[in-house]
Amino acid sequence: MKFSFEEHSHRRFNPFTGSYVQVSPHRSKRPWQGQQEKIVKSDPVTYDPECFLCPGNTRVGGEINPDYTSTFVFTNDFGALTQDIPSGSYEDGDFFKAKSERGMCKVICFSPDHSKTIPQLNQDQVFDVVKTWRKEYMELSELDFINYVQIFENKGEVMGCSNPHPHGQIWAQESIPDEPLKKQQRFLKYYQSKGKNMVTEYVQAELVKKERIIYENDSFVVLVPFWAVWPFETMIASKSHIESLAKMSDTQMADLADAYRTLTIKYDRLFDVSFPYSAGIHQAPTDGKDHPEWDLHMVFYPPLLRSASVKKFMVGYEMLANPQRDLTAEKAAGVLREL
Amino acid sequence: MKFSFEEHSHRRFNPFTGSYVQVSPHRSKRPWQGQQEKIVKSDPVTYDPECFLCPGNTRVGGEINPDYTSTFVFTNDFGALTQDIPSGSYEDGDFFKAKSERGMCKVICFSPDHSKTIPQLNQDQVFDVVKTWRKEYMELSELDFINYVQIFENKGEVMGCSNPHPHGQIWAQESIPDEPLKKQQRFLKYYQSKGKNMVTEYVQAELVKKERIIYENDSFVVLVPFWAVWPFETMIASKSHIESLAKMSDTQMADLADAYRTLTIKYDRLFDVSFPYSAGIHQAPTDGKDHPEWDLHMVFYPPLLRSASVKKFMVGYEMLANPQRDLTAEKAAGVLREL
Ligand SMILES: O=P(O)(O)O[C@H]1O[C@H](CO)[C@@H](O)[C@H](O)[C@H]1O
Ligand SMILES: O=P(O)(O)O[C@H]1O[C@H](CO)[C@@H](O)[C@H](O)[C@H]1O
Repeated sequence: MKFSFEEHSHRRFNPFTGSYVQVSPHRSKRPWQGQQEKIVKSDPVTYDPECFLCPGNTRVGGEINPDYTSTFVFTNDFGALTQDIPSGSYEDGDFFKAKSERGMCKVICFSPDHSKTIPQLNQDQVFDVVKTWRKEYMELSELDFINYVQIFENKGEVMGCSNPHPHGQIWAQESIPDEPLKKQQRFLKYYQSKGKNMVTEYVQAELVKKERIIYENDSFVVLVPFWAVWPFETMIASKSHIESLAKMSDTQMADLADAYRTLTIKYDRLFDVSFPYSAGIHQAPTDGKDHPEWDLHMVFYPPLLRSASVKKFMVGYEMLANPQRDLTAEKAAGVLREL
Repeated sequence: MKFSFEEHSHRRFNPFTGSYVQVSPHRSKRPWQGQQEKIVKSDPVTYDPECFLCPGNTRVGGEINPDYTSTFVFTNDFGALTQDIPSGSYEDGDFFKAKSERGMCKVICFSPDHSKTIPQLNQDQVFDVVKTWRKEYMELSELDFINYVQIFENKGEVMGCSNPHPHGQIWAQESIPDEPLKKQQRFLKYYQSKGKNMVTEYVQAELVKKERIIYENDSFVVLVPFWAVWPFETMIASKSHIESLAKMSDTQMADLADAYRTLTIKYDRLFDVSFPYSAGIHQAPTDGKDHPEWDLHMVFYPPLLRSASVKKFMVGYEMLANPQRDLTAEKAAGVLREL
């Protein structure tokens, strides 16, 4: 018997972060008697008078939303990060180290329509979302105390989304958070030793292999990374060097919108449900330095495993020891490609 | 205005793993309109003829459980890790690295009683669970291809537990998984530079400060770590050096059982519900080497935030950027101590 990673338990290495994933392909046959997720269809109402995010409505904090017609951005009324705190730090021996953290949290409504998620918007509307990201990223980079900007979206109740009006978020802050920092360190090391960018080199290698590619257009590739953790985890990555949103051309922005839309349309078809995920962009820090080692890429972490109601739980072993998946990256890519 | 970590947004450092947590104390006022968890009470039936784990019943794989009267251990019928795979590896350039991973997955039924979770068992019964862990850990360490043993428990449907009969698991394998490996590296560095153990030094420092201590007996302390991520995350740590279960005296095992039981009784009282969590033991690898740098400790990651039906979602920002919490470690410890 020869080792085959389509069949046998193995670990794969993630060169972007330096971590591993335990892959157990034989495990997908396991019966499931645990929790079933509620199937939430997207809200059929285009305007909800009770919604905090719909145009013209009053928000939790008391402010009134304008009658917006495209995207709409506002500062989160309950942001985890705020500007108005004193600086300070606390350090006592080896074990007690804390430091104040300034930042800003914003919400981006994707459109005035309460019922329309990204895959239901048209290309021009998703292009507006990408342009809004770029504008926000650039404005936030101007602020001295903002060194990293995390753009993300929680889609679906199962992903902790607390308002059904389709929206994304931006959390911007002083420090580079843990996950992008790991990438920062590894991208830089690779760039310094090889004079090349890890992300675009990886994309080129995947374009040759083809088996994990789901979709491509002129500027972007949608693929399941070799080291994917979530069952249908994907990445949208650029074919050529793009440090951040600030450096993107209109064509590239339109292509990113196209890739984002196409992927999420496929996702919705997978289990015939408004497909939940957390997604977001990793790109160069806004610390005033050049970052030739960085390439913008967008990652999607969707929890569903076998159907609209059975999700993968990252608990127990995964929390305490190591991420684990049942389905190979190649199988997941094959399914998504065909949709 | 002076910086206060009871009030202002800040980051805390975790010296055990080298990661950070974003703490946003002001955020607990945020209204919640998102998903509500189903409140699952523990099963009132002491024996369920349909249960795969009850004594005398037939399991998914066809085997028949013995008429056990204390704990009962068997090999998982759908283990993510198995012994019977060929060794091999795959490496192609910088991006495609995989290696076969042998291992074993076992299930530990805590008692024959289908209805009794750890806090509902008596001290002797929990002592039996600890003795079973020790026996399993020691037996698995004898196997050449097992270099790490992860003992854990997923409690509650919300934590992905797929069988209501109270049980824990053991996943043992060739490699040291990511999370214990981070600790391994940091404990070793600390030990080499200071000649002391990080865990017991930390426990001593917390015993002086008192504000994060929940409970203690002769051998163990139950505390909320300064860098806790989950709302009511806790740790049971030893006051003196104990490398692993293999090195524990009967008194220490009884004290661990007492701490485990006392903590989970408090947890059940917190929101008047059978309190869900993932918990497990981090201890010395079983790689045949001495590990004076290690001290056994048990960690608890419970998801509930404000009530039996509102959990903390680790999504979006947390998956993409950095773990984040709303409540300070000191507040959480205060609440648990008083129960
Ligand atoms: O083994 P179980 O209880 O069926 O499964 C549960 O625990 C495992 C180990 O933490 C996880 O991989 C699964 O996602 C979870 O549902
Ligand atoms: O900001 P929201 O949508 O209310 O909250 C959601 O996203 C945040 C950022 O990922 C998380 O911290 C919360 O746990 C989650 O419920």
